[in-house]
Amino acid sequence: MSEKLKIETCLTPALLPLYQIENSIVVIIDIFRATSSICYGIENGAEAIIPVAQVEECAAYREKGLDYLLAAERNGEVVAGFDFGNSPFSYTSEKVSGKTIVLTTTNGTHALHLSRGAKKVVIGSFLNLSALCNWLISQQENILLVCAGWKNNFNLEDTLFAGAVVDKLQSDAYQTDDSSTAANDLFQLAKHDLNTYLQKTAHSERLKKLGIEEDIKFCLQVDVTTAIPVLQGEKLVKLEE
Amino acid sequence: MSEKLKIETCLTPALLPLYQIENSIVVIIDIFRATSSICYGIENGAEAIIPVAQVEECAAYREKGLDYLLAAERNGEVVAGFDFGNSPFSYTSEKVSGKTIVLTTTNGTHALHLSRGAKKVVIGSFLNLSALCNWLISQQENILLVCAGWKNNFNLEDTLFAGAVVDKLQSDAYQTDDSSTAANDLFQLAKHDLNTYLQKTAHSERLKKLGIEEDIKFCLQVDVTTAIPVLQGEKLVKLEE
Repeated sequence: MSEKLKIETCLTPALLPLYQIENSIVVIIDIFRATSSICYGIENGAEAIIPVAQVEECAAYREKGLDYLLAAERNGEVVAGFDFGNSPFSYTSEKVSGKTIVLTTTNGTHALHLSRGAKKVVIGSFLNLSALCNWLISQQENILLVCAGWKNNFNLEDTLFAGAVVDKLQSDAYQTDDSSTAANDLFQLAKHDLNTYLQKTAHSERLKKLGIEEDIKFCLQVDVTTAIPVLQGEKLVKLEE
Repeated sequence: MSEKLKIETCLTPALLPLYQIENSIVVIIDIFRATSSICYGIENGAEAIIPVAQVEECAAYREKGLDYLLAAERNGEVVAGFDFGNSPFSYTSEKVSGKTIVLTTTNGTHALHLSRGAKKVVIGSFLNLSALCNWLISQQENILLVCAGWKNNFNLEDTLFAGAVVDKLQSDAYQTDDSSTAANDLFQLAKHDLNTYLQKTAHSERLKKLGIEEDIKFCLQVDVTTAIPVLQGEKLVKLEE
């Protein structure tokens, strides 16, 4: 009997040193809202999305004089001088088609940077769940689901999405670690109404105060896109199969 | 309205730097088998239990010429020259009453050492669940549940026990973080038959190979002891209220 492929879930970027990322395809998960917005933007024809950690880094792209769209938010407001914030509603075809977007995202960028050594780094969200999982199955590789979390802390929404992937990939072909089992069990509890389940998260109140409840609902839609963003150098582009 | 007390769950010792342990009572959790054996030993009259990380450190106590019992295992076997292994069945009154035991436990000791700065460090297991929770409620302090995990990885059994504590303490008096919410939800799924639920853990097979299935069953008994071991210097002793 050959060794089974592995599905592992890294619950926060702080635990990444425990995994052998070079043997896996890594899926970056930052449901509210970075990886949801990235999936939507790439679906809508953005040429590339460049994730950066700091607003200053983002602003520096303006100096390069090229036709970048710059996305940065602080406390739910678009930063003055930037083109838009992190809401997925900003990533429509009208706005992003053919453009390169520089996106400020702390947790997602952190997870991406730490995952560079992987066989491939792709972006997951509920929006592209089935397309992503079908592609993952076709690859026949070990899979590491990396939850971006919140400042290195565990969060429920990223874990639920990891569970959704484990659920789709469940078969005798893969062996799962305990965190993948837990994520899948939590997803089973939540899947019939993700939004209600997530009301009990620690930052549900914080998100409400930011006035981004519509964004949250948007990010919890399942299978409304099929593009799979993949990391190429510093840029996320559409995976061409 | 005064600030609520917090219950937080640290899913592995690798995440401890994210918490302000000095503001909390820490509960160390290493269900298979360190904290279960410690609870049982203290219940049965052990004067103190000294947890150490290495077999060599444990052996060094022999040199001290005092009346220590030394507990060390490798691959499910008692190490030659030691008094017993890590099985809770070794911690009966006949064997441990009035004695000081030096116990080799990698994950549990790691979690303990990192938690020294807490207001108090106590030991939890299913064996002393209710006694522990009643005491915790009486303290009116922030609570940090520290899962010892497996080599810094998340594991299901320690997380389930954290969930059992959150379940008991659930009330408007405490606010929970996402990992405590997840742990509690997993416990709700598992509580009617912990043993069956845990069959799906990654190391269920490993534990079977070690021939410690009876130990596992023993460690999953709820409320068979009432002693709460507490850290005093290097030693775990019975908490006197």
